[in-house]
Amino acid sequence: MIKVTIVGGSGYTGGELIRLLINHPEVEISAVTSRQYQDLPIYKVHPHLRGVELKFTDLKSDSDADVVFTATPHGSSMKIVPDLLETGSKVIDLSGDYRFRDFSIYEKWYGLKHTAPLDAVYGLPEIYREQIRKADLIANPGCFPTGGILATLPLSKEKIADRIVIDSKTGVSGGGVKASEAFHFPNISDNINPYNIIKHRHAGEIQEKLNEFSNIKLSFTPHLVPVIRGILTTSHSFRSDDNLNLSSDKLNEIYKKEYKNEPFVKVLEVGEIPRLSSVRGSNYVHIGGFEIDEVGRIVVISAIDNLVKGASGQAIQNMNLICKFKENESINHFGLHP
Amino acid sequence: MIKVTIVGGSGYTGGELIRLLINHPEVEISAVTSRQYQDLPIYKVHPHLRGVELKFTDLKSDSDADVVFTATPHGSSMKIVPDLLETGSKVIDLSGDYRFRDFSIYEKWYGLKHTAPLDAVYGLPEIYREQIRKADLIANPGCFPTGGILATLPLSKEKIADRIVIDSKTGVSGGGVKASEAFHFPNISDNINPYNIIKHRHAGEIQEKLNEFSNIKLSFTPHLVPVIRGILTTSHSFRSDDNLNLSSDKLNEIYKKEYKNEPFVKVLEVGEIPRLSSVRGSNYVHIGGFEIDEVGRIVVISAIDNLVKGASGQAIQNMNLICKFKENESINHFGLHP
Amino acid sequence: MIKVTIVGGSGYTGGELIRLLINHPEVEISAVTSRQYQDLPIYKVHPHLRGVELKFTDLKSDSDADVVFTATPHGSSMKIVPDLLETGSKVIDLSGDYRFRDFSIYEKWYGLKHTAPLDAVYGLPEIYREQIRKADLIANPGCFPTGGILATLPLSKEKIADRIVIDSKTGVSGGGVKASEAFHFPNISDNINPYNIIKHRHAGEIQEKLNEFSNIKLSFTPHLVPVIRGILTTSHSFRSDDNLNLSSDKLNEIYKKEYKNEPFVKVLEVGEIPRLSSVRGSNYVHIGGFEIDEVGRIVVISAIDNLVKGASGQAIQNMNLICKFKENESINHFGLHP
Amino acid sequence: MIKVTIVGGSGYTGGELIRLLINHPEVEISAVTSRQYQDLPIYKVHPHLRGVELKFTDLKSDSDADVVFTATPHGSSMKIVPDLLETGSKVIDLSGDYRFRDFSIYEKWYGLKHTAPLDAVYGLPEIYREQIRKADLIANPGCFPTGGILATLPLSKEKIADRIVIDSKTGVSGGGVKASEAFHFPNISDNINPYNIIKHRHAGEIQEKLNEFSNIKLSFTPHLVPVIRGILTTSHSFRSDDNLNLSSDKLNEIYKKEYKNEPFVKVLEVGEIPRLSSVRGSNYVHIGGFEIDEVGRIVVISAIDNLVKGASGQAIQNMNLICKFKENESINHFGLHP
Repeated sequence: MIKVTIVGGSGYTGGELIRLLINHPEVEISAVTSRQYQDLPIYKVHPHLRGVELKFTDLKSDSDADVVFTATPHGSSMKIVPDLLETGSKVIDLSGDYRFRDFSIYEKWYGLKHTAPLDAVYGLPEIYREQIRKADLIANPGCFPTGGILATLPLSKEKIADRIVIDSKTGVSGGGVKASEAFHFPNISDNINPYNIIKHRHAGEIQEKLNEFSNIKLSFTPHLVPVIRGILTTSHSFRSDDNLNLSSDKLNEIYKKEYKNEPFVKVLEVGEIPRLSSVRGSNYVHIGGFEIDEVGRIVVISAIDNLVKGASGQAIQNMNLICKFKENESINHFGLHP
Repeated sequence: MIKVTIVGGSGYTGGELIRLLINHPEVEISAVTSRQYQDLPIYKVHPHLRGVELKFTDLKSDSDADVVFTATPHGSSMKIVPDLLETGSKVIDLSGDYRFRDFSIYEKWYGLKHTAPLDAVYGLPEIYREQIRKADLIANPGCFPTGGILATLPLSKEKIADRIVIDSKTGVSGGGVKASEAFHFPNISDNINPYNIIKHRHAGEIQEKLNEFSNIKLSFTPHLVPVIRGILTTSHSFRSDDNLNLSSDKLNEIYKKEYKNEPFVKVLEVGEIPRLSSVRGSNYVHIGGFEIDEVGRIVVISAIDNLVKGASGQAIQNMNLICKFKENESINHFGLHP
Repeated sequence: MIKVTIVGGSGYTGGELIRLLINHPEVEISAVTSRQYQDLPIYKVHPHLRGVELKFTDLKSDSDADVVFTATPHGSSMKIVPDLLETGSKVIDLSGDYRFRDFSIYEKWYGLKHTAPLDAVYGLPEIYREQIRKADLIANPGCFPTGGILATLPLSKEKIADRIVIDSKTGVSGGGVKASEAFHFPNISDNINPYNIIKHRHAGEIQEKLNEFSNIKLSFTPHLVPVIRGILTTSHSFRSDDNLNLSSDKLNEIYKKEYKNEPFVKVLEVGEIPRLSSVRGSNYVHIGGFEIDEVGRIVVISAIDNLVKGASGQAIQNMNLICKFKENESINHFGLHP
Repeated sequence: MIKVTIVGGSGYTGGELIRLLINHPEVEISAVTSRQYQDLPIYKVHPHLRGVELKFTDLKSDSDADVVFTATPHGSSMKIVPDLLETGSKVIDLSGDYRFRDFSIYEKWYGLKHTAPLDAVYGLPEIYREQIRKADLIANPGCFPTGGILATLPLSKEKIADRIVIDSKTGVSGGGVKASEAFHFPNISDNINPYNIIKHRHAGEIQEKLNEFSNIKLSFTPHLVPVIRGILTTSHSFRSDDNLNLSSDKLNEIYKKEYKNEPFVKVLEVGEIPRLSSVRGSNYVHIGGFEIDEVGRIVVISAIDNLVKGASGQAIQNMNLICKFKENESINHFGLHP
């Protein structure tokens, strides 16, 4: 039994951490912090958690935690993570602050000076499982990068493509719990809203990770869609000169081989299309498509739940790895379809 | 470990039974039947269950099951339930065929001759828990009746109201997996569609159960709403002459007392409103409102997931009771909000 | 050709007024005011009006208008309406400030002292057409009252019912252009949210108007639904003792007679159900249902677009009446289905 | 005053033609045909058109029409268009049958033998306005091609790009009025469904038209989104070697010049994003984006209503051109936002 603290527990990722951890047989949630809601029962903010007997606390109570999840905004995490590590806790940070190996790239995309650079492991088990097991600080991947990297990783590893356009469609929960004009129901419903069409931060994150395997010219455009949860990533990739004869079947085989031991990645058959509802509320990733058109474009599509595999579920997967629990403990349920 | 068979497993309630039972530590799913999809892997029909290693079979394979769930249409269940009971299985029937104590009322509302009347227990644990534990045949309640009865049961038991109007709003999954004009996306989205406004079958079911406690004049109107899952039931009730001084606080207290030991019923405070998202994908019922207006109308509102507490989750709750498992085993997770 | 000014033109009702008036052959929009957006082209706030060559101005420029629409919040209208009338303009006020004949009822429901009571005509042409033609000040009806009164007016006029429960379902645009937690997409989508379940202001407005014809015990509960536009009103009414033998057909006939000369009211047949999409974007009202259940409850259902017949379209209908234009000029298009 | 017949008037495009033509001052609808619904009042199928005094007829009644709209499926149009032309009517065909200059390309994409090839003008006024004015047979463009071609036409005309990926998101009404599993509400809502990811027919149509100006390697992937109306087209284009220094501002200027006299095309500023709600129900096209990322990808985005500019509105625009009416007669209203 370990003690776990959630710092910044009033947002959607905080709510998901509690929802998923509350049934974890090896975990006791010792504190959920929120400056704004201190002393309020958690279910007043997370109405689905009525029945959970926890109140929000302030930050200092987290000192004896074995694992701390920092569900804090970028810029805030860097202010608290060093102290948390100091106390001996393992830290899984859900912000962008520790996701970049090269902090100057972080500073470029986030427009912030990084005041506390530290070694961290990028918490995508499908690439870094062994490093995660031994890490003290995990940078939990962004939601778009999780969907985007897993959809294209074999293209980079096997040097199949040299140019990739990622056209992503995200549910609105990705924007967080706070109301704003952009998330006002009449502005989202019956609309499809592209945003940050050439300069979303997650472009930098995807680029850095794919470039560890080969040199990719990456383009990324996200769209806000009238969906609560889920990211559907459509990747359009162009084969490098050495791969002009690659077939769909061969491509599919490469993906199956890449992910054959992954507990949460399901590789579909050629022509099968992933659905958001198949992974809704779950930690699974479905990857499908694998078709190649007459002008040599490869289409690979992934579906994730942005709050689970794209955030809190993956964070728990990382915790399970660090703590030597079963990797899928408390996150092994299937998606909520329909 | 018991063996469980699901008869008619290709619909939404079948999918939910599998989703919830697959992680049940005391259950082995020995067969899922479907005439239409025989021999097909289950995930071809239920895309979220990719990873479940089961194929649809035909009916005869269910003979050694300890518990059989019949997720078959009304009219079909009565043809197979007697034989299933004959084999020694306990049967939990999700159709309407065994929900009425008085089969002539069944025949009136369903427009069918009942060819195999049998003693059954109405599977609403909040009323009939002790009888359920000993039953061989459970009639699992309808979705509207689950939401409607739980919202108004204390009004009948305590003889508080003599006239109740139930105005229900249901997600489209209640209509099943089969496409039709009524469920065509452009006909549902941005619409609110009342239907069977005075003659829905579930009116008869609610009426019969409430009348066991006192004589209620019941009116019921369902609406199809642009929501996938969930039933929000708004009950408008009029106090009987003996209760004209009943206060909101007293009313709330009565509900809290009624449900204080119920593992899945959460009674909110006066003025708090239940949300569909709080119970989405879960077996919980939230009940709130409890306000009384100037002309003496009581408003009590309930929220359930029609496929879980309104169907498959409740069926598993019944199975847990019959088999002496923990009542909330495999159905103890919270709702998927947002 | 008349000059028209819209005061408070940056909200949804302002946008609708412009959208509908821009093609009115007898109208020139001389000013659209907005303190917040002064000097900004209108299409920067109303993106669908790109192509309209108007900028927001401040209030004083409206002085020479023949008709002024005040699309201002309640409490604000009373501060400007007297001066506008002073200049000789006819005023059509879209706020609640002048809707009540009895200002003490206004003060009770709005919790505000009324500082400038004036004679106004309630702008529901289906009741007050002749008075509207001669009015200087029109109180444009609320959205719920428009749907609710038109659904039940004959029940009051003909003294058919003495108790009415109105269960209304409104699109989110009724809450206005401003973002808030209540209208945050993840809180609305896949949810049905009752609010102000016994004390919504519009209850008072409906009550006062129906009571002009007979004494009705009115109950009203609104629900926010995942729809952009439209109000679906389900009225549950109980027949007075003199009307216990009233049939559906007779009821339908009474409605047809009541509305037979109304250009915007369509009375459906017994059992036909109005749809929001049938009136989306249009000034029409569809009224249907007319069924009576075994315990004597009458169900009549109406559908309107809350921003058109429930606000700006009706305001233009009133303007057309005042100015002796064709009553349906510029608001004669049909709904946008699908 | 001309006489107009609509052949195949029971679908969504038929409904839109009636909705828009009913207020056209120069048009009398002399017949709306439907084999299935013959003699039924039109509003029984198109509930929003209650008030239109027309009944469906069979085909022969169309013989004296000046203009015939054939809103018939591909494969059916070719069977009736030659005879209709024979009678002297102008024909505007909304199917795919006459959209290809090269009928062998039609046969490849549609998998059909074309039995009645005829000269037709492709009814996209932004390219072929002068030819349309003189045409007897108009092939009204597909919905995706309308959005896709207008978003990228200047890139082809000015030889700016040589490779274009079009990632389109369409509302469900594009799939027609008929229910099917693909359009079942629970399968669409909260989902984003790519389909025909490399082989949608409209790819061929876009390709042929763009290739008239320069040689483009076109890729096309459509997605079905939980929206009733509208197509949001995200085009990702790669600059040809001669254009590597092209700036966003220059690009925007080229688009503004291209469309400066177009009554229905609105070119936004650099960085402004079109919205589906801005054009909902209207014949407008909004084009925006114009940003270029670090790897040289150009993003241009267009928004149309698939049933209006993508079908029936454009057909009426073509009729107006043929008949020398005002080009925007009866289709000059703005979009329905919110």
